[in-house]
Amino acid sequence: MNAEILAIGTEILLGDIVNTNAQFISQELAELGIGVYWQTVVGDNPERMKKAMHNAFDRADIIITTGGLGPTEDDLTKEIGAEYFGRKLYLDDKALERIKQFFDRMKRPMMENNVKQAMIPEGAIVMYNDFGTAPGIIIENGEKILIMMPGPPREMKPMFMGQVKPYLESKQEYTLVSKTLRVAGVGESAMEMRVKDLIDAQTNPTVAPYAKVVEAVLRITAKADTKEEAEKIIEPVAEEIRSRFGADIYAEGDTTMQETVAKILLEKNMTIAVAESCTGGLVASKLIEYPGISKVFLEGAVTYSNEAKMKRLGVKPETLKSFGAVSAETAAEMARGIAETSGAQIGVSTTGVAGPGPSEGKPEGLVYIGVNIKGKSYVKELNLAGSRGLIRERAAYSALDYLRRKLILD
Amino acid sequence: MNAEILAIGTEILLGDIVNTNAQFISQELAELGIGVYWQTVVGDNPERMKKAMHNAFDRADIIITTGGLGPTEDDLTKEIGAEYFGRKLYLDDKALERIKQFFDRMKRPMMENNVKQAMIPEGAIVMYNDFGTAPGIIIENGEKILIMMPGPPREMKPMFMGQVKPYLESKQEYTLVSKTLRVAGVGESAMEMRVKDLIDAQTNPTVAPYAKVVEAVLRITAKADTKEEAEKIIEPVAEEIRSRFGADIYAEGDTTMQETVAKILLEKNMTIAVAESCTGGLVASKLIEYPGISKVFLEGAVTYSNEAKMKRLGVKPETLKSFGAVSAETAAEMARGIAETSGAQIGVSTTGVAGPGPSEGKPEGLVYIGVNIKGKSYVKELNLAGSRGLIRERAAYSALDYLRRKLILD
Repeated sequence: MNAEILAIGTEILLGDIVNTNAQFISQELAELGIGVYWQTVVGDNPERMKKAMHNAFDRADIIITTGGLGPTEDDLTKEIGAEYFGRKLYLDDKALERIKQFFDRMKRPMMENNVKQAMIPEGAIVMYNDFGTAPGIIIENGEKILIMMPGPPREMKPMFMGQVKPYLESKQEYTLVSKTLRVAGVGESAMEMRVKDLIDAQTNPTVAPYAKVVEAVLRITAKADTKEEAEKIIEPVAEEIRSRFGADIYAEGDTTMQETVAKILLEKNMTIAVAESCTGGLVASKLIEYPGISKVFLEGAVTYSNEAKMKRLGVKPETLKSFGAVSAETAAEMARGIAETSGAQIGVSTTGVAGPGPSEGKPEGLVYIGVNIKGKSYVKELNLAGSRGLIRERAAYSALDYLRRKLILD
Repeated sequence: MNAEILAIGTEILLGDIVNTNAQFISQELAELGIGVYWQTVVGDNPERMKKAMHNAFDRADIIITTGGLGPTEDDLTKEIGAEYFGRKLYLDDKALERIKQFFDRMKRPMMENNVKQAMIPEGAIVMYNDFGTAPGIIIENGEKILIMMPGPPREMKPMFMGQVKPYLESKQEYTLVSKTLRVAGVGESAMEMRVKDLIDAQTNPTVAPYAKVVEAVLRITAKADTKEEAEKIIEPVAEEIRSRFGADIYAEGDTTMQETVAKILLEKNMTIAVAESCTGGLVASKLIEYPGISKVFLEGAVTYSNEAKMKRLGVKPETLKSFGAVSAETAAEMARGIAETSGAQIGVSTTGVAGPGPSEGKPEGLVYIGVNIKGKSYVKELNLAGSRGLIRERAAYSALDYLRRKLILD
């Protein structure tokens, strides 16, 4: 089976929004083993919409559309889809009832033109929308399948995951299951090299590397008759990769470094405080993304100036003078200082040159991470590349990763 | 003139990357007054690339491609474009020299396959690439124009702005000029209502509102023979909007709230320190995005716990007991505390409920911003909506905006 993704919306053609829907759907279809050879965007123009739908069905078994299901006269995706399949529209009482309920929940009156959204092509599958007014619709005729979803990602994504994905899985003769292993502190090429033999084997399961902005992941995907069987195929390969990467794999599945570290801290019930220079609040801010972190996160200090490093953290003037603010010695004193003054069991620090350009004779991208756990001191030196923003992001990520490694070995 | 955007890259079809290039180019073309009716994505497959190019030229005057200009055998955009126009490829010495220079600057050896990137279609315009190895190429035959650019945004964007945009402007019979007014603290609908009469006039210039995640902008666009004339048409409308919005317009052009505030602080040479609870480092982190801020940014404190608020900032225990951590009184004491203990002229504080759910009897989204300027205290109450992440982003933005308003009235 192969599919084509068709986004309908003049706002995409004007560049007002990015078509992130296409990425989300493409990624999900790839995991389902459904090929995507074309993505298209057209505006709310009936002639071009018809043309795009005809082109797509000439090439693909499935078209997945986003957008054009709103209540206005410009919203025509459903009408054009129904026409393609020769289906009439009727007012679906259950769909109308759901739309009314949505407005009741929002405590807003339903508009007359919302009735249009309950008009359904005969014989179609209606997908209810918990996050908006437009129901999604599937029309199939034994040969081609048209899946129409609303444009806003907060409506489209749950509809895809809850209704479209199970529908497509039921059409597949087999099941695809993926497992994601998240790798920290290893570059993309180095990661690939370590598993090149597994990637090249390319049987069942497959192993594929993906590079993100500050990290990289390995995805293992297996094809089988059942979910359980697929998981059985994945497990030995996952185990092999785990043994090759060890602590470089920080988590499995859909999560983040900060969530992983927050959970370890809560599990160990260890209190933490953070002193940041070049990351300027990013490390604290990332940890605080996790609800419930207040149980262990005591405080953060953004000690950007030398004065603040001395006054707040007790960094010695002679350390700053002899080694500079960007040095292993300063990082260590910062981590110790924030732990001692806050009473936390763990202190973490960052100090470095975010750029642009060098500072006090230290090159752009040189960053020191300090970790102090119950008085024991660790320091790591990093040489990071990228813009000022990217260096700060990478430094914050690396600080959390360095802390994680010390905690799991603790 | 109308254009079509064609992205070439299997990694987009797999959902590994979002096609942000299409948004960037669409936005720029809209500002140039060039209509875009289709955006298409195909993989590195010669048959589909040919088909996509033929389809596009049936409908559009200009095709702008991104991707497929790399050194590997899979990279075929240039070959297929040259074939469409019936042009042969030749090795361009100057293009090769530029590629060699690029590798010299990167201190990496040039690979043999990079020579392919210096192969140029006869009669084409070569666009040099300062950020990568693939030159961009323009082929025109008096009727149709094909503009090919590399895929990585960091290479494509400067090439578009520096070379493609001036080229397209030279093809236009008129000039389009836009001015962006950035509005803070006013919702999108409220903003639109205040200028509805100007939007409805829709003559020359046009006025259009755009909503971003935490702010909104108004764009005024004029069409004229010259840039100067267009600016003359814009100015009275800009002046009218400025007088309606006053301090709600925080800046004009391509900038951010944090950059605006950082510049005011540096201009006034006023030192600042920040104490954050619910934003947990975001305010400090945003200010530190601006290089050179170290001259005035003394320090930040992430005082998430009540203990830290008392110990670091001197918030009184009875204030926390009587009014709670999320209160106007606590916000005021936090701002005063960070200013006094750091010796900064300005203290800024945030305290609120980021959620999910209420906390200590206060509803999710309730946030207090404190600003203390040379001992004078100001507090603002906000009721924000959205996820935990969005509430924190909006609170940080609002804190900077509140400070800005106090500083410009100072």
